Amino acid sequence: MMKPNNRAEKIILGVDPGTNVMGYGVLEVRGNKAEMIAMGVIELKKYESHYLRLGKIFERITGIIDSYKPDEMAIEAPFFGKNVQSMLKLGRAQGVAITAAIMRDIPITEYEPRKIKMAITGRGSAAKEQVAGMLQRMLHIPKEEMDVQLDATDALGAAYCHFIQMGKPETEHKFNSWKDFVKKNSDKVH
Amino acid sequence: MMKPNNRAEKIILGVDPGTNVMGYGVLEVRGNKAEMIAMGVIELKKYESHYLRLGKIFERITGIIDSYKPDEMAIEAPFFGKNVQSMLKLGRAQGVAITAAIMRDIPITEYEPRKIKMAITGRGSAAKEQVAGMLQRMLHIPKEEMDVQLDATDALGAAYCHFIQMGKPETEHKFNSWKDFVKKNSDKVH
Repeated sequence: MMKPNNRAEKIILGVDPGTNVMGYGVLEVRGNKAEMIAMGVIELKKYESHYLRLGKIFERITGIIDSYKPDEMAIEAPFFGKNVQSMLKLGRAQGVAITAAIMRDIPITEYEPRKIKMAITGRGSAAKEQVAGMLQRMLHIPKEEMDVQLDATDALGAAYCHFIQMGKPETEHKFNSWKDFVKKNSDKVH
Repeated sequence: MMKPNNRAEKIILGVDPGTNVMGYGVLEVRGNKAEMIAMGVIELKKYESHYLRLGKIFERITGIIDSYKPDEMAIEAPFFGKNVQSMLKLGRAQGVAITAAIMRDIPITEYEPRKIKMAITGRGSAAKEQVAGMLQRMLHIPKEEMDVQLDATDALGAAYCHFIQMGKPETEHKFNSWKDFVKKNSDKVH
């Protein structure tokens, strides 16, 4: 017998990728209610090697996926406004986080920072602190659990933005899982 | 009994990462002689999803690593001259290729395209065709094996540049393998 109220209907992993600090937040969705079940950061500054940092991102994101078994992943992904070299670096971190999800067959959706801020605070230019404050109130997060870096709340914001978006029509960045793709395009995949 | 002449002293994997086509070339080094043992491309255009492409890069590079067991990986890595969005995309492809190597504990060295061209042709602004021609002559590659895309010869060029570089003093981009790093920094790695 199914007990829908005893299980999570959907787990969303939010990620804010970076090569100094990577934030993550996990949201459990039941019907139209969402609850924060984990958030934190992966500190990468302690690893001198850029390559080692990328390897650590892959390992830790894979570990988080295996712990919380998310159904979907939302990424905070800036597309504009940085110089080419910082974008290259950011792209590397994003690519690694995306690959960790792809290798576990988890669909990915990207959201620009402005869109996340808009979805949560109603203002695309809101400060990170305002996003954190709104998330705390909307998700009823106990104050002591808010003692995290803003990279963690940013990541949770991406997950929350995805939760809001889920009720809306398909978005352009919507990704159907690899398994789905393979099923539908078995002639294209080798 | 060791038979040093019967085994490769070092295998170098060269990679030219991109999200449309990814080139690879494998070089076997014995003493001061190098021989091309494989080169080719991973066609990614057929996969519509950007995410699927990244997953495929990871899978295929991992497969190439497991087939040829390279000791080191050399990447052609442009740092300049593209707009932020193409750099972000390129960074993602690079990040995935790097992570595939890191997860197999393979040291990575990056070379800018100009440096590769300079090392092979003596001219940083040489055309890709000239690089391919020089590689063919220097590595005595049969003409019929040169019927590959220039992404493949570019990747082989990165491997060859690394081979030349190996005889020189440590380069700034030199990466000591993760295993080495962990050994020397066991207090830093969790």
